[in-house]
Amino acid sequence: MPIQPVLINGQWRTANHSGTFQAANPASGEKLADEYPISTWGDIDEALNASQQAFEALRQAPHEKIAVFLERFADLIEARSAELVELANRETALPSKPRLADVELPRTTGQLRQAAAAARSSGWARPTIDTGLDIRSCLEPIGPVCVFGPNNFPFAFGSASGGDFAAAIAAGNPVIAKANSSHPGTTRIFAEQALAALEESQLPKATVQLLYRTSHEDGERMVADPRVAATGYTGSRGAGLALKAAADQAGKPIYLELSSINPVVILPGALQERGTELVDEFTTSCLMGTGQFCTNPGLVVTLDDDLSRSFASKVAAAFDSAAAGTLLSQGVQHSLAGGVDRLLSLGAERMTEKTACEDASGFRCPNTVLSATGQQFLADADGFQTELFGNASLFLFCEDETQMANVLQALEGNLTGCVYSAKNGVDDETYGRIAPLLRARVGRLLNDKMPTGVAVTAAMNHGGPYPATGHSGFTAVGMPRSIERFATLACYDNVRPDRLPDILRDQCETPGVWRLVDGTWQET
Amino acid sequence: MPIQPVLINGQWRTANHSGTFQAANPASGEKLADEYPISTWGDIDEALNASQQAFEALRQAPHEKIAVFLERFADLIEARSAELVELANRETALPSKPRLADVELPRTTGQLRQAAAAARSSGWARPTIDTGLDIRSCLEPIGPVCVFGPNNFPFAFGSASGGDFAAAIAAGNPVIAKANSSHPGTTRIFAEQALAALEESQLPKATVQLLYRTSHEDGERMVADPRVAATGYTGSRGAGLALKAAADQAGKPIYLELSSINPVVILPGALQERGTELVDEFTTSCLMGTGQFCTNPGLVVTLDDDLSRSFASKVAAAFDSAAAGTLLSQGVQHSLAGGVDRLLSLGAERMTEKTACEDASGFRCPNTVLSATGQQFLADADGFQTELFGNASLFLFCEDETQMANVLQALEGNLTGCVYSAKNGVDDETYGRIAPLLRARVGRLLNDKMPTGVAVTAAMNHGGPYPATGHSGFTAVGMPRSIERFATLACYDNVRPDRLPDILRDQCETPGVWRLVDGTWQET
Repeated sequence: MPIQPVLINGQWRTANHSGTFQAANPASGEKLADEYPISTWGDIDEALNASQQAFEALRQAPHEKIAVFLERFADLIEARSAELVELANRETALPSKPRLADVELPRTTGQLRQAAAAARSSGWARPTIDTGLDIRSCLEPIGPVCVFGPNNFPFAFGSASGGDFAAAIAAGNPVIAKANSSHPGTTRIFAEQALAALEESQLPKATVQLLYRTSHEDGERMVADPRVAATGYTGSRGAGLALKAAADQAGKPIYLELSSINPVVILPGALQERGTELVDEFTTSCLMGTGQFCTNPGLVVTLDDDLSRSFASKVAAAFDSAAAGTLLSQGVQHSLAGGVDRLLSLGAERMTEKTACEDASGFRCPNTVLSATGQQFLADADGFQTELFGNASLFLFCEDETQMANVLQALEGNLTGCVYSAKNGVDDETYGRIAPLLRARVGRLLNDKMPTGVAVTAAMNHGGPYPATGHSGFTAVGMPRSIERFATLACYDNVRPDRLPDILRDQCETPGVWRLVDGTWQET
Repeated sequence: MPIQPVLINGQWRTANHSGTFQAANPASGEKLADEYPISTWGDIDEALNASQQAFEALRQAPHEKIAVFLERFADLIEARSAELVELANRETALPSKPRLADVELPRTTGQLRQAAAAARSSGWARPTIDTGLDIRSCLEPIGPVCVFGPNNFPFAFGSASGGDFAAAIAAGNPVIAKANSSHPGTTRIFAEQALAALEESQLPKATVQLLYRTSHEDGERMVADPRVAATGYTGSRGAGLALKAAADQAGKPIYLELSSINPVVILPGALQERGTELVDEFTTSCLMGTGQFCTNPGLVVTLDDDLSRSFASKVAAAFDSAAAGTLLSQGVQHSLAGGVDRLLSLGAERMTEKTACEDASGFRCPNTVLSATGQQFLADADGFQTELFGNASLFLFCEDETQMANVLQALEGNLTGCVYSAKNGVDDETYGRIAPLLRARVGRLLNDKMPTGVAVTAAMNHGGPYPATGHSGFTAVGMPRSIERFATLACYDNVRPDRLPDILRDQCETPGVWRLVDGTWQET
């Protein structure tokens, strides 16, 4: 079987490769047939050159064309949705229905259409005009963007289809997509459809390029290359920090989404009021997608009392009776099992009974609830914050509110933090004490709601303090704000009217553009 | 004479110091009497602890109190304006009038008052509300901020008075100011007035703290400390990049303004139309403040023709007839002289006649115009972009438009770029070709205007691509946008109404807050 070609400068062509790899079917553990190349620097170099040329052309293209491309791409994804779902299921073992077909695929095309709307109205560019001084500014595209997609959302965070991709393109930047090695075939279909949509919308074909894999050294070299403007990365902390070091050194922005244990604080009044309901709510959230969400609740913080212990036992029982789902890869399986072992070695106790899966096919770990005390946690806060990426969670029992506060203060940056409290007000004083501590350590604070769902909406923050992400001022989900990551601030001082971008002209011809004119937001 | 005390946790107290330093009077070269401490880590450690506590208290303070502090501080600066001007003049040799008293001081207090207005209306926080999903977000203060001020604007960019300071405080963050060693006394007066204003407005006294100097190692350790949230730095590239490396490694945002040669392209039609006028315009801009502006025009790009050569000769003559101003320090003098020598060694020619100053007192270099060809520049673009911080500029004569375009493409990131073109349209085609090249390499693009002035206005961008700054998406000047650097994105998902910040409530009680509600900007 021939090695799959890469997409460089509008051509699917044989890669310059140093080796090949195959994805596995996580449900069986067997390798899938297709062979994908590990590109050498020669491929990257060509892609970078083509990307630069594409960027020059994109800068001249009307925003409308970019919007049309994004919409057409969404249509063309829908045209091959059955094939995408089938292949993604084979490569990731994520359920075809409802997950892939009914949730993730519509989310992905919806996100592309939201990006199109933002491109059309420059909703991300924040045009600002000071008429008296004739000084004007807006965000503009930054240049070629590298996107490294994660393993857990082959569509919605895919490197040639997901949020970073949509944001980078909406701003007017070409993308070099680095496929996640666990679902290269899925990514290939997206790139095929993107190329077709580029042709139909008459944008440069090198606006979207695809490489499957590179050496770590070449990846680091790529994000630091003068031809690259910025990078979006979602994945493991180790690989992300290596890319960050390379990009930082070269002065290149890199937006990282790395890891998060998403603490959930459940106060006594809430357990009293609706403990049984919360057992279901927590179990559903934590086992959804076999727990492989960036926003999976991996740490539950309660007071150490009978109610909390009983709640945790019921969750453990629910975990034991639920079938263990398939994990995305052998790497995820090893990492999860290793994380559980690490916490056990630190003194955590296993509350679930199963230590192995009944169904031993494919990549699986048993649904696992661990527990520890606040005191144990505080004695090794780093160790106890080991991420359990998958179907496992750690319950912490704190001896009092002060210890609970200390635990929260010892947390690293996270994407989300939840507080469940009684509706009748008995927890309000405690909430007032602990919520500010959590607020300072998370990007999104929730009340009475599990963190798993991440709506694609303007006010969303899918981000958070380091090391959850690389910069807490930006979000990876939500239009138009996520687009700002791939933009540069461009000011025009005394520039003649006919030389200004349309959205900065006194007479802007694009309708529906919100602009801050002399301190007042106005829509054109 | 006793060593000057540092301001830590509301107390002026003796520093834990490893040595002392004195500023010099640049006009005479003589050391000034006051001795300032080089703080050891003990001082920094105490300041960091106090800063953290101040931040916890500031988070609870109403925005109005922060606004009142900033306004009161501006008043208290004005109350000691004569003393500030006198001491700053002695420490920097910048002219008392008009520069310090009539330009920089009003700019500084005006900036503080703009920051107060932004704090009052949360103009920087961009509150965003999606009512259907009950998801809300806004920018919130990030935490303790270190500010390293530059030598060239003792008031407007001062670490305890300038733009970074005002922005950090307006967001609700405490500041640890690291004085610039060339004007420690000026900075001390600002800190005294800030402390008085804090007392009057009942904010935590540790909201503003002052250290004069630390070792490089301790500075790097400080910006990477877990208790620090972000850093603002304006100064030399070498010191800035060392701080950046330390902050990057720790995942801390650092906003740097490093260096810029501010290319000015003058097209033939403009020289034809108004060459004589431009001689004056350029000379005034380049020699203002003895050329020590971040936005000083250090590179002039023209075609190689008689008109351009004659223009450059006239500028050189004007430079020769103007008295050479005093430079800020011996370091600036050495660096400027070294830069000129470097360019000469690369083959640049000196167009001015003077190689030494008639008035040899204090820190001075002769006003200098150098010239080179586009070809020379392209052969060593790095070398020819050596910054001449001071009263000197390099003229580049390009053999044709293509070479001019190549020169622009070889430029590093800059704060500004100007194009002068004919009013009658003869340069328009060339403009269309070269302006996009310049646009991609500068933060602010100007037409027919020198870059020196930097208005404090909403649309300003005092920023630009690396290495002019550390992140091209942000500006160091202009309210409210500059405040965003010292903020974190905070999302509230399903949070009960009484637990939301006021600016995110359906019924917001603060007037004049612009919010993006379901896609529409509305003012409360």
